[in-house]
Amino acid sequence: MKKMPARTYDRILDQGLEMLSVTGLSGVTFGALADAVGMSKSGLFAHFRSKEDIQRRLLGHADALVAAHVVAPAMAEPPGLPRLTALMRRWLGWTRRAGLGGGCPIASALFELDDLDGEVRAQVGAAEARSRALLATLAGEAVADGTFRPDTDIDQLVWELRGLYLGHHVSSRFAAEPLADQRAWTAFEALVERYRR
Amino acid sequence: MKKMPARTYDRILDQGLEMLSVTGLSGVTFGALADAVGMSKSGLFAHFRSKEDIQRRLLGHADALVAAHVVAPAMAEPPGLPRLTALMRRWLGWTRRAGLGGGCPIASALFELDDLDGEVRAQVGAAEARSRALLATLAGEAVADGTFRPDTDIDQLVWELRGLYLGHHVSSRFAAEPLADQRAWTAFEALVERYRR
Repeated sequence: MKKMPARTYDRILDQGLEMLSVTGLSGVTFGALADAVGMSKSGLFAHFRSKEDIQRRLLGHADALVAAHVVAPAMAEPPGLPRLTALMRRWLGWTRRAGLGGGCPIASALFELDDLDGEVRAQVGAAEARSRALLATLAGEAVADGTFRPDTDIDQLVWELRGLYLGHHVSSRFAAEPLADQRAWTAFEALVERYRR
Repeated sequence: MKKMPARTYDRILDQGLEMLSVTGLSGVTFGALADAVGMSKSGLFAHFRSKEDIQRRLLGHADALVAAHVVAPAMAEPPGLPRLTALMRRWLGWTRRAGLGGGCPIASALFELDDLDGEVRAQVGAAEARSRALLATLAGEAVADGTFRPDTDIDQLVWELRGLYLGHHVSSRFAAEPLADQRAWTAFEALVERYRR
């Protein structure tokens, strides 16, 4: 594949992630992306192997934004519940703060690809598993430091946090409910109280 | 538009809903549906105004299945918490019991269409609002009969039930977690306990 100037590549990733955020994976085609970045389809073909190749690089770009906008600032907080709380605060609604016009590409792909196979699905699954592993680590710290009870069911807690994130996504984006953040926070605090020592 | 035999129309709805369940709305095109039912594209064009027309009828068909497989049997239970419990039991994983090969078309559309406009989105929004209204009615019955506390925040309860449903969807379908049902049930019971008098 041809080398392209780094600036051009970055522009394709940025425009492509914006499309992905708004339309989901199905909307990110060679034709649509070429139009969005003002290149010819054959120009794009020279740089990406396939539609799946583009989609996987865009999901990787989304991962990098989550790492920068959500995970890194949360990790600057003290371990355990403060870090878990900071992570949730930054995870809920992160796409808006990262400058994207649509919703979370990972959350969307969890519904779009659930009954399909392939490398894109595998990459989404890996990203989702990593987010659960991080939540479990932070909850484990809160058990270790005595904030949560020793018998805390960490997998259950993480399972419910995932539902909370998805519920907030629908509430804030599809349904545009003004109380979305407040409801998510009430749910988070109630969940924390269930496991607090 | 041409009249078609009721049997043909039903077959298109059934095959189309199966496609919708597996691929999401973006996968339901004239071409793909014509292939699936063994008709020509022009044959389908004679009966449906547009792709959106097909999608809306398929969503209507999904609604009818939810009414038959989820709502009607739950309404046969006593009002209040028994009915709410029965509804949740039947709502979680309903597509499998309704014979569909994929996930919930409404849940999926809540992510697929969140940043788009149009009649299909409006229909999905209406279906989602109806499900919340039903949950709120049943929770209200549980307040009225003294099962839930008088100060129960019904909107919060319903908000969290939606997240629970979405979390269970990802858990059982995308992630294929063996404990999906059990985790959903633990979450439901904890939520009920929060509001129990």
